[in-house]
Amino acid sequence: MIRVGILGGGQLGRMLLQAAANYPAETHVMENDPSCPAATLCHHFHLGNIRTYEDVLNFGRQVDVLTIEIEQVNVDALELLEKEGIRVIPKPAVLRTIQNKILQKEFYRQNNLPTAPYCITQNRSELINHLELLPAVHKLGVGGYDGRGVTVLNQESDLPLGFDEPAVLEKKIEIKKEIAVLVAVAPSGETKVYPSVEMIFDPNLNLLDYQVCPADINTEIESKAAALAIQLVEAFQSPGLFAVEMFLDHSGNQWINEVAPRVHNSGHHTIEAHYCSQFDMLWRILMGLPLGNSTAILPSLMINVLGAAGFTGDASYLGLEKVLQLPNAFLHLYGKKRTKPGRKMGHITLMGADVNQLKRFAEDIKTRLQVVCR
Amino acid sequence: MIRVGILGGGQLGRMLLQAAANYPAETHVMENDPSCPAATLCHHFHLGNIRTYEDVLNFGRQVDVLTIEIEQVNVDALELLEKEGIRVIPKPAVLRTIQNKILQKEFYRQNNLPTAPYCITQNRSELINHLELLPAVHKLGVGGYDGRGVTVLNQESDLPLGFDEPAVLEKKIEIKKEIAVLVAVAPSGETKVYPSVEMIFDPNLNLLDYQVCPADINTEIESKAAALAIQLVEAFQSPGLFAVEMFLDHSGNQWINEVAPRVHNSGHHTIEAHYCSQFDMLWRILMGLPLGNSTAILPSLMINVLGAAGFTGDASYLGLEKVLQLPNAFLHLYGKKRTKPGRKMGHITLMGADVNQLKRFAEDIKTRLQVVCR
Repeated sequence: MIRVGILGGGQLGRMLLQAAANYPAETHVMENDPSCPAATLCHHFHLGNIRTYEDVLNFGRQVDVLTIEIEQVNVDALELLEKEGIRVIPKPAVLRTIQNKILQKEFYRQNNLPTAPYCITQNRSELINHLELLPAVHKLGVGGYDGRGVTVLNQESDLPLGFDEPAVLEKKIEIKKEIAVLVAVAPSGETKVYPSVEMIFDPNLNLLDYQVCPADINTEIESKAAALAIQLVEAFQSPGLFAVEMFLDHSGNQWINEVAPRVHNSGHHTIEAHYCSQFDMLWRILMGLPLGNSTAILPSLMINVLGAAGFTGDASYLGLEKVLQLPNAFLHLYGKKRTKPGRKMGHITLMGADVNQLKRFAEDIKTRLQVVCR
Repeated sequence: MIRVGILGGGQLGRMLLQAAANYPAETHVMENDPSCPAATLCHHFHLGNIRTYEDVLNFGRQVDVLTIEIEQVNVDALELLEKEGIRVIPKPAVLRTIQNKILQKEFYRQNNLPTAPYCITQNRSELINHLELLPAVHKLGVGGYDGRGVTVLNQESDLPLGFDEPAVLEKKIEIKKEIAVLVAVAPSGETKVYPSVEMIFDPNLNLLDYQVCPADINTEIESKAAALAIQLVEAFQSPGLFAVEMFLDHSGNQWINEVAPRVHNSGHHTIEAHYCSQFDMLWRILMGLPLGNSTAILPSLMINVLGAAGFTGDASYLGLEKVLQLPNAFLHLYGKKRTKPGRKMGHITLMGADVNQLKRFAEDIKTRLQVVCR
């Protein structure tokens, strides 16, 4: 049995553990919440803070292979563990780059990867020197997460909203589509690319509505996106499972937005709709086994199950019966006891040859399925 | 959260729990071995004996829904629990019939289900009155399991080998093929049938070699098999997931051999090769949700991973890398620490359009994959 440690105990860890049971792995999870989604599915749960040097070090020394399900972990500890001979996937150097939006952008530039024009600002007063980039997005170098640490600066009068710490000022791209490409990288360097996923946003709420695979793009753009994703992950020189998020503009250009060096929300549909899921794929990488088949069985659509507005407390699910009556509809709840407005409580995957029909089903799900409190 | 109890903690329970995490279920497992395959994947593990009245009663009173992953459980306790309002799936009456081979055969006869000609013997001395059934198989009414409690009586001189307790004497069918049909029955009575699976035996060892889905039979026989399986499960008048094992003879007749009212070895391939796996299907039934899609994505082959002869001790797996290089090969290990000759340690599923190629791959796996001790 290979001892595998996962830093973080959220839903991504949970789904990783569902797949883990197939492999000769003894699973360890560290998280600071004993009721987290992954806590009950691992062999050994360790209470600890994934951002703390000592906690990560002590945890890592108890396993043979270490991976993450969230980027915000203590990289100093991971670097020492790597020196001590623990296999860390992805490599700590990748996490160091990705944790800092400034280093991430510089990495793209150094590797000739297309990304929106930008400059680095050390403080708020420097913004006035870069008006040519406006309208722009100002992103904190470190500390931003899940929508925090990002602000939009449309015009000069918005500059006081900018950050007074090291940050990236990035020209706003006129986005036609947002897509994500998952790539698996074996320890040998072999890669497998999943077909691209398209994020569909609610035009009113400006929130992710659902994701469709494959993206509605022509084969040339699809090939370019795959090539770009491979070029990017090869530059990292690290095994792992990577989700590469890109913007497509109206001229057919592709711009790398962000990379996550881990299993990702944009790959949930692969559980049912692809021969080898992103979770199974990562286990093959962690165990040093051959990569699986990333191709799609059928087109698919993934919609998050979010806590309904106005409800905070013990979660209850309304409408599951109607949703699971849809052909090839699959439920994944994350085992979170409490709901709150907008909290990711689970997801639903639909599979089918007719993508437009899947989209109609998704609209149906949005009206029928509700996470409330009894 | 619905509290669901599973009696038995083997690999079937383990795979059930992998699927359970998707549903709003709090999982409980009872088994008398805390290191059993299912122990680390449930919310609450209960140490206890599934054959003991008190243990089953106490366990069952802590859940809302109760199911099994093995038939040899205490049915008296289940009947009381059912009276107390616990939902027991399958119904205890089904288990009572199936646990006793005499009652099982009588049930087939009462419901006009084709099964091999037989008589019931109370003791060994009665056998002499039924020479017309020879060559025959003598099966103990109760207590037989996994090959025990079954003996072949080819001729009169074999009669001393027969059982001296209540048993079934069943005429040997000239078997052309052995198939299994899985059927899901919702609480509403709705059914979904999986395509039939064919068991392929090693002609030298007379052991199950692997299983192929769909069985190599014509559509008429396939339809008849499905109709027979539905007729059988409807006669049980119980929700659940049922595996119906049948013999086909050289005249195209179908004979019911045995039924298991639970997820079954003959359904392992459904995890990857069918839209809705047998495990996902049982969860839908347990949770009162609509049945899933039982159709096949592609033909498939399932081969058990057995402990190699000559090795008893801590298990180690040789050849996994070669096996997982095969296209669409999927590994499922059962988390058993110790191997012994012939022990079921896991299985491998192969998917592909060309069944003959899958069979060649299976031969390859048999030579490459070994469960040994380091």
